[in-house]
Amino acid sequence: MNNQLDSLRDELDQVNIQLLELINKRGQLVKELGDIKKAQGMKAYDPERERDMLNHIVEQHQGPFEYSTIEHLFKEIFKAAKELQEDDYHKTLLV
Amino acid sequence: MNNQLDSLRDELDQVNIQLLELINKRGQLVKELGDIKKAQGMKAYDPERERDMLNHIVEQHQGPFEYSTIEHLFKEIFKAAKELQEDDYHKTLLV
Repeated sequence: MNNQLDSLRDELDQVNIQLLELINKRGQLVKELGDIKKAQGMKAYDPERERDMLNHIVEQHQGPFEYSTIEHLFKEIFKAAKELQEDDYHKTLLV
Repeated sequence: MNNQLDSLRDELDQVNIQLLELINKRGQLVKELGDIKKAQGMKAYDPERERDMLNHIVEQHQGPFEYSTIEHLFKEIFKAAKELQEDDYHKTLLV
Protein backbone atom coordinates (compact mmCIF):
# COMPACT_ATOMS: atom_id res chain seq x y z
CA MET A 1 0.00 0.00 0.00
CA ASN A 2 2.77 2.47 0.90
CA ASN A 3 4.69 1.64 -2.27
CA GLN A 4 1.59 2.64 -4.17
CA LEU A 5 1.46 5.91 -2.18
CA ASP A 6 5.14 6.63 -2.93
CA SER A 7 4.75 5.87 -6.61
CA LEU A 8 1.67 8.15 -6.89
CA ARG A 9 3.60 10.91 -5.09
CA ASP A 10 6.53 10.53 -7.49
CA GLU A 11 4.12 10.77 -10.39
CA LEU A 12 2.53 13.89 -8.82
CA ASP A 13 5.97 15.53 -8.47
CA GLN A 14 6.67 14.84 -12.14
CA VAL A 15 3.31 16.30 -13.17
CA ASN A 16 4.04 19.41 -11.06
CA ILE A 17 7.32 20.00 -12.91
CA GLN A 18 5.67 19.40 -16.30
CA LEU A 19 3.02 21.95 -15.31
CA LEU A 20 5.73 24.42 -14.28
CA GLU A 21 7.48 24.01 -17.62
CA LEU A 22 4.24 24.45 -19.58
CA ILE A 23 3.17 27.52 -17.59
CA ASN A 24 6.55 29.12 -18.31
CA LYS A 25 6.45 28.07 -21.97
CA ARG A 26 3.01 29.68 -22.15
CA GLY A 27 4.40 32.86 -20.55
CA GLN A 28 7.17 32.99 -23.13
CA LEU A 29 4.70 32.59 -26.01
CA VAL A 30 2.45 35.33 -24.64
CA LYS A 31 5.47 37.65 -24.35
CA GLU A 32 6.43 36.97 -27.97
CA LEU A 33 2.85 37.51 -29.12
CA GLY A 34 2.70 40.78 -27.18
CA ASP A 35 5.95 42.01 -28.73
CA ILE A 36 4.73 41.31 -32.27
CA LYS A 37 1.37 42.96 -31.60
CA LYS A 38 3.01 46.06 -30.12
CA ALA A 39 5.36 46.28 -33.11
CA GLN A 40 2.21 46.34 -35.28
CA GLY A 41 0.60 49.03 -33.13
CA MET A 42 -1.97 46.54 -31.77
CA LYS A 43 -2.95 46.23 -28.12
CA ALA A 44 -1.30 43.19 -26.53
CA TYR A 45 -4.40 42.30 -24.52
CA ASP A 46 -7.43 41.09 -26.45
CA PRO A 47 -10.38 40.09 -24.19
CA GLU A 48 -12.29 38.55 -27.13
CA ARG A 49 -9.39 36.25 -28.03
CA GLU A 50 -9.08 35.36 -24.32
CA ARG A 51 -12.78 34.40 -24.19
CA ASP A 52 -12.33 32.26 -27.35
CA MET A 53 -9.33 30.49 -25.81
CA LEU A 54 -11.30 29.79 -22.64
CA ASN A 55 -14.30 28.46 -24.58
CA HIS A 56 -12.02 26.18 -26.58
CA ILE A 57 -10.39 24.86 -23.38
CA VAL A 58 -13.73 24.25 -21.65
CA GLU A 59 -15.03 22.41 -24.75
CA GLN A 60 -12.12 19.96 -24.48
CA HIS A 61 -12.57 19.44 -20.75
CA GLN A 62 -13.76 16.05 -19.50
CA GLY A 63 -13.08 16.08 -15.75
CA PRO A 64 -12.48 15.23 -12.94
CA PHE A 65 -12.60 18.95 -12.14
CA GLU A 66 -15.76 21.04 -12.39
CA TYR A 67 -15.97 23.31 -15.44
CA SER A 68 -16.05 26.33 -13.11
CA THR A 69 -12.76 25.21 -11.50
CA ILE A 70 -11.08 24.89 -14.90
CA GLU A 71 -12.35 28.34 -15.87
CA HIS A 72 -11.06 29.79 -12.62
CA LEU A 73 -7.60 28.21 -12.98
CA PHE A 74 -7.18 29.33 -16.58
CA LYS A 75 -8.31 32.86 -15.74
CA GLU A 76 -5.53 32.94 -13.12
CA ILE A 77 -3.03 31.62 -15.70
CA PHE A 78 -4.19 34.23 -18.24
CA LYS A 79 -3.95 36.99 -15.63
CA ALA A 80 -0.37 36.02 -14.80
CA ALA A 81 0.60 36.19 -18.48
CA LYS A 82 -1.05 39.59 -18.80
CA GLU A 83 1.02 40.89 -15.90
CA LEU A 84 4.11 39.67 -17.76
CA GLN A 85 3.16 41.77 -20.80
CA GLU A 86 2.45 44.79 -18.59
CA ASP A 87 5.83 44.42 -16.86
CA ASP A 88 7.50 44.50 -20.25
CA TYR A 89 5.49 47.56 -21.20
CA HIS A 90 6.46 49.43 -18.03
CA LYS A 91 10.11 48.47 -18.53
CA THR A 92 9.91 49.93 -22.05
CA LEU A 93 8.52 53.17 -20.65
CA LEU A 94 11.46 53.45 -18.25
CA VAL A 95 14.12 53.15 -20.97
CA MET B 1 4.37 39.11 -39.55
CA ASN B 2 0.76 37.87 -39.34
CA ASN B 3 1.82 34.33 -40.17
CA GLN B 4 4.10 34.52 -37.18
CA LEU B 5 1.18 35.76 -35.05
CA ASP B 6 -1.04 32.90 -36.24
CA SER B 7 1.63 30.31 -35.64
CA LEU B 8 2.27 31.60 -32.08
CA ARG B 9 -1.49 31.54 -31.42
CA ASP B 10 -1.71 27.95 -32.64
CA GLU B 11 1.15 27.04 -30.37
CA LEU B 12 -0.58 28.82 -27.47
CA ASP B 13 -3.80 26.86 -28.10
CA GLN B 14 -1.83 23.62 -28.02
CA VAL B 15 -0.12 24.59 -24.77
CA ASN B 16 -3.53 25.43 -23.27
CA ILE B 17 -4.86 21.95 -24.06
CA GLN B 18 -1.68 20.31 -22.72
CA LEU B 19 -2.13 22.34 -19.52
CA LEU B 20 -5.77 21.24 -19.30
CA GLU B 21 -4.76 17.59 -19.66
CA LEU B 22 -2.02 17.89 -17.03
CA ILE B 23 -4.27 19.72 -14.54
CA ASN B 24 -6.86 16.94 -14.91
CA LYS B 25 -4.20 14.22 -14.68
CA ARG B 26 -2.99 15.90 -11.49
CA GLY B 27 -6.56 15.95 -10.15
CA GLN B 28 -6.92 12.24 -10.86
CA LEU B 29 -3.64 11.45 -9.06
CA VAL B 30 -4.65 13.52 -6.03
CA LYS B 31 -7.99 11.67 -5.90
CA GLU B 32 -6.21 8.29 -5.97
CA LEU B 33 -3.76 9.44 -3.29
CA GLY B 34 -6.66 10.65 -1.13
CA ASP B 35 -8.51 7.34 -1.49
CA ILE B 36 -5.45 5.33 -0.43
CA LYS B 37 -4.78 7.63 2.52
CA LYS B 38 -8.39 7.46 3.69
CA ALA B 39 -8.33 3.66 3.43
CA GLN B 40 -5.30 3.77 5.75
CA GLY B 41 -7.09 6.10 8.18
CA MET B 42 -4.81 9.01 7.22
CA LYS B 43 -6.00 12.54 6.50
CA ALA B 44 -6.03 13.22 2.75
CA TYR B 45 -4.73 16.78 3.17
CA ASP B 46 -1.15 17.16 4.37
CA PRO B 47 0.01 20.82 4.55
CA GLU B 48 3.65 19.81 5.14
CA ARG B 49 3.75 17.68 2.00
CA GLU B 50 2.08 20.55 0.12
CA ARG B 51 4.79 22.99 1.31
CA ASP B 52 7.50 20.46 0.23
CA MET B 53 5.92 20.15 -3.22
CA LEU B 54 5.79 23.93 -3.58
CA ASN B 55 9.43 24.33 -2.49
CA HIS B 56 10.49 21.68 -5.00
CA ILE B 57 8.57 23.43 -7.80
CA VAL B 58 10.00 26.86 -6.96
CA GLU B 59 13.55 25.40 -6.87
CA GLN B 60 13.10 24.21 -10.47
CA HIS B 61 11.66 27.51 -11.66
CA GLN B 62 13.69 29.65 -14.05
CA GLY B 63 11.23 32.24 -15.40
CA PRO B 64 9.88 34.25 -17.17
CA PHE B 65 7.30 34.46 -14.36
CA GLU B 66 8.10 35.87 -10.93
CA TYR B 67 8.54 33.25 -8.18
CA SER B 68 5.56 34.77 -6.36
CA THR B 69 3.37 34.26 -9.46
CA ILE B 70 4.38 30.60 -9.70
CA GLU B 71 3.64 30.12 -6.00
CA HIS B 72 0.25 31.78 -6.42
CA LEU B 73 -0.71 29.66 -9.46
CA PHE B 74 0.32 26.39 -7.81
CA LYS B 75 -1.54 27.28 -4.62
CA GLU B 76 -4.68 27.71 -6.76
CA ILE B 77 -4.00 24.36 -8.47
CA PHE B 78 -3.47 22.67 -5.07
CA LYS B 79 -6.66 24.26 -3.71
CA ALA B 80 -8.68 22.94 -6.64
CA ALA B 81 -7.39 19.41 -6.04
CA LYS B 82 -8.22 19.68 -2.35
CA GLU B 83 -11.79 20.61 -3.22
CA LEU B 84 -11.94 17.47 -5.35
CA GLN B 85 -10.98 15.34 -2.33
CA GLU B 86 -13.54 17.14 -0.16
CA ASP B 87 -16.27 16.60 -2.77
CA ASP B 88 -15.51 12.89 -2.69
CA TYR B 89 -15.62 12.90 1.09
CA HIS B 90 -19.01 14.65 1.16
CA LYS B 91 -20.36 12.23 -1.46
CA THR B 92 -19.26 9.35 0.77
CA LEU B 93 -21.13 10.87 3.70
CA LEU B 94 -24.32 11.08 1.63
CA VAL B 95 -24.30 7.38 0.67
